[in-house]
Amino acid sequence: MISVKQYTLSELAEFLQAEIKGNPDCVISGLSTLQDATEGQLSFLANPAYEKYLSETKAGAVMLTPDMAEKFSGQALVMANPYLGFAKASRLFEAGDGEQVGVHASAVVAETATVDPQAWVGPCSVVEDGAVIEAGARLLGNCFVGRDSRVGKGTVLKGNVTLCHGVSVGERCIIHSGAVLGSDGFGFARAAGEWVKIAQLGGVVVGNDVEIGANTTIDRGALGNTVIADGVKLDNLIQIAHNVEIGKNTAIAANVGISGSTKIGSGCTIAGGSGLAGHLTIADNVHIAGMAMITKSITSAGEWSSAGIGTMPVKEWRKNTVRFRQLDDMARRLKALEKAVDQNS
Amino acid sequence: MISVKQYTLSELAEFLQAEIKGNPDCVISGLSTLQDATEGQLSFLANPAYEKYLSETKAGAVMLTPDMAEKFSGQALVMANPYLGFAKASRLFEAGDGEQVGVHASAVVAETATVDPQAWVGPCSVVEDGAVIEAGARLLGNCFVGRDSRVGKGTVLKGNVTLCHGVSVGERCIIHSGAVLGSDGFGFARAAGEWVKIAQLGGVVVGNDVEIGANTTIDRGALGNTVIADGVKLDNLIQIAHNVEIGKNTAIAANVGISGSTKIGSGCTIAGGSGLAGHLTIADNVHIAGMAMITKSITSAGEWSSAGIGTMPVKEWRKNTVRFRQLDDMARRLKALEKAVDQNS
Amino acid sequence: MISVKQYTLSELAEFLQAEIKGNPDCVISGLSTLQDATEGQLSFLANPAYEKYLSETKAGAVMLTPDMAEKFSGQALVMANPYLGFAKASRLFEAGDGEQVGVHASAVVAETATVDPQAWVGPCSVVEDGAVIEAGARLLGNCFVGRDSRVGKGTVLKGNVTLCHGVSVGERCIIHSGAVLGSDGFGFARAAGEWVKIAQLGGVVVGNDVEIGANTTIDRGALGNTVIADGVKLDNLIQIAHNVEIGKNTAIAANVGISGSTKIGSGCTIAGGSGLAGHLTIADNVHIAGMAMITKSITSAGEWSSAGIGTMPVKEWRKNTVRFRQLDDMARRLKALEKAVDQNS
Repeated sequence: MISVKQYTLSELAEFLQAEIKGNPDCVISGLSTLQDATEGQLSFLANPAYEKYLSETKAGAVMLTPDMAEKFSGQALVMANPYLGFAKASRLFEAGDGEQVGVHASAVVAETATVDPQAWVGPCSVVEDGAVIEAGARLLGNCFVGRDSRVGKGTVLKGNVTLCHGVSVGERCIIHSGAVLGSDGFGFARAAGEWVKIAQLGGVVVGNDVEIGANTTIDRGALGNTVIADGVKLDNLIQIAHNVEIGKNTAIAANVGISGSTKIGSGCTIAGGSGLAGHLTIADNVHIAGMAMITKSITSAGEWSSAGIGTMPVKEWRKNTVRFRQLDDMARRLKALEKAVDQNS
Repeated sequence: MISVKQYTLSELAEFLQAEIKGNPDCVISGLSTLQDATEGQLSFLANPAYEKYLSETKAGAVMLTPDMAEKFSGQALVMANPYLGFAKASRLFEAGDGEQVGVHASAVVAETATVDPQAWVGPCSVVEDGAVIEAGARLLGNCFVGRDSRVGKGTVLKGNVTLCHGVSVGERCIIHSGAVLGSDGFGFARAAGEWVKIAQLGGVVVGNDVEIGANTTIDRGALGNTVIADGVKLDNLIQIAHNVEIGKNTAIAANVGISGSTKIGSGCTIAGGSGLAGHLTIADNVHIAGMAMITKSITSAGEWSSAGIGTMPVKEWRKNTVRFRQLDDMARRLKALEKAVDQNS
Repeated sequence: MISVKQYTLSELAEFLQAEIKGNPDCVISGLSTLQDATEGQLSFLANPAYEKYLSETKAGAVMLTPDMAEKFSGQALVMANPYLGFAKASRLFEAGDGEQVGVHASAVVAETATVDPQAWVGPCSVVEDGAVIEAGARLLGNCFVGRDSRVGKGTVLKGNVTLCHGVSVGERCIIHSGAVLGSDGFGFARAAGEWVKIAQLGGVVVGNDVEIGANTTIDRGALGNTVIADGVKLDNLIQIAHNVEIGKNTAIAANVGISGSTKIGSGCTIAGGSGLAGHLTIADNVHIAGMAMITKSITSAGEWSSAGIGTMPVKEWRKNTVRFRQLDDMARRLKALEKAVDQNS
């Protein structure tokens, strides 16, 4: 029993605020790429590199800009931003995580916790003392919500998510499997060669409409909170250390690490694998390239990088990296030569 | 009550297709390195660096090539590839994850899920609607298998594994603890400074004989699937983004990140900490060095690198990295000098 | 019902072995930074960069060195090392993970496992055959402890922690959520283009007073154990491969990867994002900088680096990285020029 979601072109046009080119009653039952789409499916052209697939697509209709629509003989939904159209349409065809409400018999909810009757606490989930699960929130299964934590309205915790104690997650967030919010920050004082733990007394505060990727970790603050603002999107396997603050609508790709107390502005993007040292301030609208190592604050918007010398065969790379170690010496010799040549002239 | 696995040399020789040098009835009850082996244990010599330990080993028998066996006065199992012999023998001495079948009383299996009578669903595991657990498959405990996912014959999910919905894992795979398969790909369209989520409508398809490391994450496809072919081996903490395809028998070490839609050939190896940009194509039998940053497709087999300038004391490194920022300037000055010297000559 | 922890200045002074400047009966009920502290709170000055906030702090008392205390008009606890004072005081104000003992009704403990009456096995946790949970140990919830594993006295496993089989964790350790100890090492022999798994027969041995971060993974040994010595502190998302040994009191920051059989000395620090190749030996008291790639053993104490060319705008970075590929060529041309100029002179 598979329920297929179907829409007419006119229903889609209304939802997407697009103009129809073709039969408004044509039925669409899926979404696909230009290359793979079948007759009953909707597709889109956003990246010019894929224009070559347009003339031969079998899609029932294609989301296109007015320019492209003119060149196209098939059915189209015409709009200014087909990629945005794709994003919006994708959600029409999503199966969703179910509509259950209540607490599964195998879940364990502490007496002093509050679960809204319109929330769902899935199988083998644990909700500790004082925690609050708001209306429409869903814990799919095997989740752990520590004491005094909050899961806001409409927020979904996928399977195996952990919120430690005193973590507040806002509304309409998606927390993917294996993510950990509120683990202790890495703080120690050194004494006689040993490490004395600094208890991490702060919490984690996550705003609304935030998405947090699988196995990403967000540590609680040492004093005060680690703060993730509204609309932030975090990919998988990201490390956010204690007392980091991330500004509104900043998006961070996988495998990034952000050290303690660094403050990142709003509207930033950080590409995969980058690392930021602690106690930095990154301005709004800064875009950091992949695998960059950021050790100083960035005070103005724009693109920044510090890494990546380009792929090359290992032999070529070996020769050049050996020279890297001679770079300072080479610079000095170059200067000496310039002086010598100048004297010769 | 510890059950020790014991084999005679002749049993081992038959299993490993090796020639015996010594007493065929000699009993072996374990496997160890040349340095640590005791009288009742089997050892091996694969790496020439360890030849120095051969003459003094206390091992009951050693897996050796014919050449080495000639030089060795003790008992031996003689074979072409002692490292392969070690691999095969290691599995004889493994304790295994138990032989239970059935569904533990604390596990939660949805009514529309199918669990083969020869499968094991361990304690506090959750199997959602429409999921299929095939014969010989084992979920050790605290696992979450989302709706319509499949765990193939003989596949093991260790403790705390998550398969989200619509994830298909083939036969004889091993999925280590904390791994997440089928989390949403990181896809958003930007509109008016905010991110609009692109629902991730594809799935994850994992072939047979695949191993996936602890806390590794594999995102579901946006449209179409993320595909991991037969025989792929993934280490821990790897990020595989949406719509990535990894070819047969490719092995990837820990902490690697692969961005969306990148296609990796078969028989490749990628060393730890490397990052690959999105939409690349990597040929078959490409070997990528550690911590490399790959931003362009690689069209021919062989070894590639892009990173790692060699360890040096911080002082030396500081001097050279300052010069790196002057490299373009140095290159221009060098060219000018060459011209000047040429004119002087 | 929130229980606030309160101490008089004289109680704190005794605990911290500090000298009081001010009213010994003054009541302190929290800890905060100089900037944020209120009247009833204790603060500290450890980093000279924050001295500017001292004169205007509203803190009820400040932990200070004798020098700073002289300049300060408010109440103080005077001590040699205020940062250590902060660490010690922080633990006085910690809420703790509860004081329950026993086994939660939803937990599943195998018949042959041993749980001390003074230990706590939290909801939906699984303890397998032969495992031992010692006095004062606590498994918060959704934890999986495999067969024959040990959780030492006073050790805490936060939510969703996994110990595979045969993992021994010492006393007073803290294992954060999502951490996996004892997953298989990444070991395969190649045969006819396929990978033959090497069963990982060793275990993991963790000493006393160790802290292991969220989603960190520690693989079991192939033969013999992976060993984490007393007092080691590991941050989040770290990969420790099979048969690695980490010496006493070494601290490793997030996103680090350590390849198989590498031995790290005691008293070392490794900054975030670094990677170490396999089979290396790192001396005691070595300090490795962030995102370093260490491919050779380090035989003497001190600071080492191999990475990070400094943040720069993408345009500048592009120009210089192109030159990097010409570096070997530039070095040769430089040498030729030196020769030519020498002949000209």
